[in-house]
Amino acid sequence: MADAKARIAVLGASGYTGSELVRLLLRHPRVELVALTADRKAGQTMAEVFPQFAPFALPKLVTIDEVDFTAVDLVFCALPHATTQLVIKKVFDAAPNVKVVDLSADFRLKDPGAYEQWYGHPHQALELQQEAVFGLVEIYRDDIRKARLVANPGCHSSTAILPIVPLLEAGAIEPESIVVDSKTGMSGAGRSAKEAMLFSEVSEGIHAYAVTGHRHMGELDQEFSKAAGRPVAPMFVPVLAPMNRGIYATIFVRTTGVRAEDLHSILADYYKGEPFVHVLPFGQVPQSRHVRGSNMVFLGVAADRNPSRAILVSTLDNLVKGASGQAVQNMNLVLGFPETLGLDQIALMP
Amino acid sequence: MADAKARIAVLGASGYTGSELVRLLLRHPRVELVALTADRKAGQTMAEVFPQFAPFALPKLVTIDEVDFTAVDLVFCALPHATTQLVIKKVFDAAPNVKVVDLSADFRLKDPGAYEQWYGHPHQALELQQEAVFGLVEIYRDDIRKARLVANPGCHSSTAILPIVPLLEAGAIEPESIVVDSKTGMSGAGRSAKEAMLFSEVSEGIHAYAVTGHRHMGELDQEFSKAAGRPVAPMFVPVLAPMNRGIYATIFVRTTGVRAEDLHSILADYYKGEPFVHVLPFGQVPQSRHVRGSNMVFLGVAADRNPSRAILVSTLDNLVKGASGQAVQNMNLVLGFPETLGLDQIALMP
Amino acid sequence: MADAKARIAVLGASGYTGSELVRLLLRHPRVELVALTADRKAGQTMAEVFPQFAPFALPKLVTIDEVDFTAVDLVFCALPHATTQLVIKKVFDAAPNVKVVDLSADFRLKDPGAYEQWYGHPHQALELQQEAVFGLVEIYRDDIRKARLVANPGCHSSTAILPIVPLLEAGAIEPESIVVDSKTGMSGAGRSAKEAMLFSEVSEGIHAYAVTGHRHMGELDQEFSKAAGRPVAPMFVPVLAPMNRGIYATIFVRTTGVRAEDLHSILADYYKGEPFVHVLPFGQVPQSRHVRGSNMVFLGVAADRNPSRAILVSTLDNLVKGASGQAVQNMNLVLGFPETLGLDQIALMP
Amino acid sequence: MADAKARIAVLGASGYTGSELVRLLLRHPRVELVALTADRKAGQTMAEVFPQFAPFALPKLVTIDEVDFTAVDLVFCALPHATTQLVIKKVFDAAPNVKVVDLSADFRLKDPGAYEQWYGHPHQALELQQEAVFGLVEIYRDDIRKARLVANPGCHSSTAILPIVPLLEAGAIEPESIVVDSKTGMSGAGRSAKEAMLFSEVSEGIHAYAVTGHRHMGELDQEFSKAAGRPVAPMFVPVLAPMNRGIYATIFVRTTGVRAEDLHSILADYYKGEPFVHVLPFGQVPQSRHVRGSNMVFLGVAADRNPSRAILVSTLDNLVKGASGQAVQNMNLVLGFPETLGLDQIALMP
Repeated sequence: MADAKARIAVLGASGYTGSELVRLLLRHPRVELVALTADRKAGQTMAEVFPQFAPFALPKLVTIDEVDFTAVDLVFCALPHATTQLVIKKVFDAAPNVKVVDLSADFRLKDPGAYEQWYGHPHQALELQQEAVFGLVEIYRDDIRKARLVANPGCHSSTAILPIVPLLEAGAIEPESIVVDSKTGMSGAGRSAKEAMLFSEVSEGIHAYAVTGHRHMGELDQEFSKAAGRPVAPMFVPVLAPMNRGIYATIFVRTTGVRAEDLHSILADYYKGEPFVHVLPFGQVPQSRHVRGSNMVFLGVAADRNPSRAILVSTLDNLVKGASGQAVQNMNLVLGFPETLGLDQIALMP
Repeated sequence: MADAKARIAVLGASGYTGSELVRLLLRHPRVELVALTADRKAGQTMAEVFPQFAPFALPKLVTIDEVDFTAVDLVFCALPHATTQLVIKKVFDAAPNVKVVDLSADFRLKDPGAYEQWYGHPHQALELQQEAVFGLVEIYRDDIRKARLVANPGCHSSTAILPIVPLLEAGAIEPESIVVDSKTGMSGAGRSAKEAMLFSEVSEGIHAYAVTGHRHMGELDQEFSKAAGRPVAPMFVPVLAPMNRGIYATIFVRTTGVRAEDLHSILADYYKGEPFVHVLPFGQVPQSRHVRGSNMVFLGVAADRNPSRAILVSTLDNLVKGASGQAVQNMNLVLGFPETLGLDQIALMP
Repeated sequence: MADAKARIAVLGASGYTGSELVRLLLRHPRVELVALTADRKAGQTMAEVFPQFAPFALPKLVTIDEVDFTAVDLVFCALPHATTQLVIKKVFDAAPNVKVVDLSADFRLKDPGAYEQWYGHPHQALELQQEAVFGLVEIYRDDIRKARLVANPGCHSSTAILPIVPLLEAGAIEPESIVVDSKTGMSGAGRSAKEAMLFSEVSEGIHAYAVTGHRHMGELDQEFSKAAGRPVAPMFVPVLAPMNRGIYATIFVRTTGVRAEDLHSILADYYKGEPFVHVLPFGQVPQSRHVRGSNMVFLGVAADRNPSRAILVSTLDNLVKGASGQAVQNMNLVLGFPETLGLDQIALMP
Repeated sequence: MADAKARIAVLGASGYTGSELVRLLLRHPRVELVALTADRKAGQTMAEVFPQFAPFALPKLVTIDEVDFTAVDLVFCALPHATTQLVIKKVFDAAPNVKVVDLSADFRLKDPGAYEQWYGHPHQALELQQEAVFGLVEIYRDDIRKARLVANPGCHSSTAILPIVPLLEAGAIEPESIVVDSKTGMSGAGRSAKEAMLFSEVSEGIHAYAVTGHRHMGELDQEFSKAAGRPVAPMFVPVLAPMNRGIYATIFVRTTGVRAEDLHSILADYYKGEPFVHVLPFGQVPQSRHVRGSNMVFLGVAADRNPSRAILVSTLDNLVKGASGQAVQNMNLVLGFPETLGLDQIALMP
């Protein structure tokens, strides 16, 4: 039965990354949604929580405790930080052979000290933390294929890591020169009712936030340092833009003597053949709307007037390649499906 | 060779309905894009005109004269009004057996007088005007299957016709009572550079336009009158809302004695089993974002405090069910494909 | 001391109508802000709650109990419905000579039965309800000058009453034909943290709400009936548009035999010389952005193709003429100031 | 006649900076608008071009040739770059004693070579170029008071110069470390009909532009170099955000050994008592909406985790402090009025 469908559970289906998973998985030819959870909305239908799903047959929302994980092949975990590590521990206790793709931040940082520094408490599932694979497919594809637990990276993190890591690995840029200004749409903040997220507080304006330290910086430090072979701590400021979807990072670097064109060549080579990373011609920069709704990352490299400096631009849809699309890409690898299956949607523009 | 792909040409691929056709057709399993035209941008690639297509292989933009229509199975025509009728005449002269789905307004009005009244000049292809089938699948499915030339309806028209026609056919509402307030997003206005369409002229505000007569009223008159069996001329005001996609019609009616619940039953029965029309539970109204990017229409019926009045709400994505998705649905019928093929995308929300 | 400044208290300064009052009053030459209340934010500065006020000297936020109303000339009450009536009763008990302009709905409906019907509970201050004057200056100017308690009308109400009442008084339109489709920006919903008001739930889409009955309908019924001399119950649907400010009502009417031009003449005559109501030339319709940030109402009248029908358009800024600007206009009358004082700001466009 | 009103002409009143000047000047107690020009719209009223002015008495639009500059006290010039220098030359030829505040870029760069480099052609009015004063009041107040020709700075320029110049003058930051990521709303791009400025091309997304060199960099180079006492060429990328108004610059710097707190102290001291510059408490960053519609600049300073680095944030409304409000501030100085006259509007939020 080569084509039996994989049985999928989505924990935390009432948030935006959860609903985006459902959107993608409903149209994936090799999976079947068997359980959707939402603790506070258990008993409701997905159509009540997200009316766009009204025309489709979907399981009712249940609590996590109601899910039989032994009857599930893969679990997507789209729960809040910190509670996730305890939930996944219990999932593996109940069903050691299930696969898990976790969209929270709980398993992204390998170093327990770094985790404690950024999240303010000791990790509660250290052995799983060590087992987890960082789920950025273009960097860790082979490890992900073999993983039981994949830690989907943060949206700001993916956007900055993809252009920077190949350049650091190539020794082409000064590690201490990296400045990342990362603009994000609102959907990344989730669906919780907070005054600062109201339309009237967010539209028709823009602002930086978390300037004294955003948690995704821990992921940048980890991946940049690994690529550079020494500790790297970039400057990073997240900025909230009045739009639903998209991360758009402007990245400023100094080179180690090479020209901006060389940085472009390194990235073009690195991502040649990658289905979801598109490097624009040298000197061109993308727009976030060119990837909206798709699983694509668009990268641009431009020269600065000072030949030892360069500007990189990276953009993706935070709910797709920055979260749920990336998660499905990870699932495809973990379950042995073609990597692009169910992820072929083209950007919606306008 | 049951699965040989149909060869498709898109005339006018550099506008928003053109790019939306390309977006949908690129992922349609039974078609192959063999020609894309854009007279003023001939010679350019689609990626230059719409960067979101950069990762995909597509034919270069050419002029209409460069297309060999005898090597094409179906032509989508997304050209401006008035020139379309001459172009399609020439297409059929060159290739009488080709099928055409026209997204312009040129073939929607059956009555030559009505055409001349709304468009200000006599029709130049009267015999084709008579041959054309009004391409609203849920109303004219059988005719469309046999058609050579399908006239895709206007976006405001589709939105209002779908809830109103079944009620008029059932004699359930007073024909002279119909009031339609039809809100639209900006993409319906196309991609031409006009001051009134600038971001700074459109965002953070709302306004009615064409209050003295919008051309889609000709389509409403035609279809409402046919359904009622006597002349109907509704009140209709289009309103421009600061959003990209979506038509959202609030419709006010007086019943012929039945209750609002009865109107709901009539619509629920009429659209039972329709893949692209979803009637919400009585008393609920949809949001335009619940259909954004999808080929769905969502319909709602609510009671007024006066039992002889009722409120209908109808919403669709003007670029999908209101234009290019509807056109692909028409193509599927004309070419004998399953009606929903390539149209299964779920709404993007947020 | 003819020019001694009036001492003003704003109850409920932490909401949008409260902050809009502060914005207007800070620049009003004849008033002094002596007390600002916000029960849950008492102890904070306005700058903490609304950073745009950081450069200005303002009293700290306190609780209502901390205000000495005998040292206040006029109180603006921008509190939630239902609690307001109890608060104002206590204010008058403590300081019977203070003037009050109330922005809540508590004193708008004269009929106790109508109040109970729309608000679900008996009124708790019936004698004040009878004393209160409906604060739509252009209709009730003389009464307002003499009032102790002014009930500022609802934003949807003001927008529809201003064009409709003169026409009903003139007997020029059929009372039972009135249909009001009233689009509103988000700021009218206030600053409370609710999921349905998040940016991601509101932007890039549009939807009707409260279709089974919006409370402002009580105000329309009251004022329309009074103007017509018989009970009038219009059709009314409010629609939420993705913008911060603005009410934009499209109104559909049948005339009593006169032409649309006559409706225009009636309105142009009625509002001749009014500083805050501008009637556009016949056939033109306004945009909500043309009044944004100002205290203006723009009215348009257009002909329908059926000479016994007409389209009216009315727009104002819900936070200014629809709430706080209207309240300051009422204050100017109550305190004997020139009516336009402090209200001369021109619309911000773009 | 100490209070005789100054006679003002606005050249280029049909663009957004022109209409913003009219909005401000209509409410300025010491000026009278005597001439408004718009070559292509000459003969029209301002109400036809900008309906928000319909309620106000304003001179008709005329051509520049129709203006008698000897009957004018001060001219605002809001014309396109390059043509401006020829127009102003002719104005001074006709009326040598008139004052001019120029909102174009023509007189901002002192060095003829720099002008030619950034604008691609030799300057046509070199003696006026030398005479002009750079119109950033907080830096050049005394010079502006005595000036006949004031060159209003660019919007991106003002936003970055205000926080950076005091720090460079104090020797507190490394000149070569400066990185400016400057987000702007759409109104800065003007009112010309271009495809790239359509709502559907700009909303719901974000993108960098002019990455290979924006003309405002010439102004940054000039002012930064002067402040540092040696050539400075910062990294600068402008980014277009989906909003009407606002410039929001995130600025990344390395200090010369001092801490971020020290940078904050330097700015707080420098701008103490300035009516239009507000420095937030250390560690806080502003939002662009907190200055929207006002003439304020809000500055924030935050520490980076690396003590030798810091993050500066600067925001203003591009049409007010970034253009027309700044111009009125300049006018007030040039004509000897109180500096804040007519500029006291508080930000509109939401």
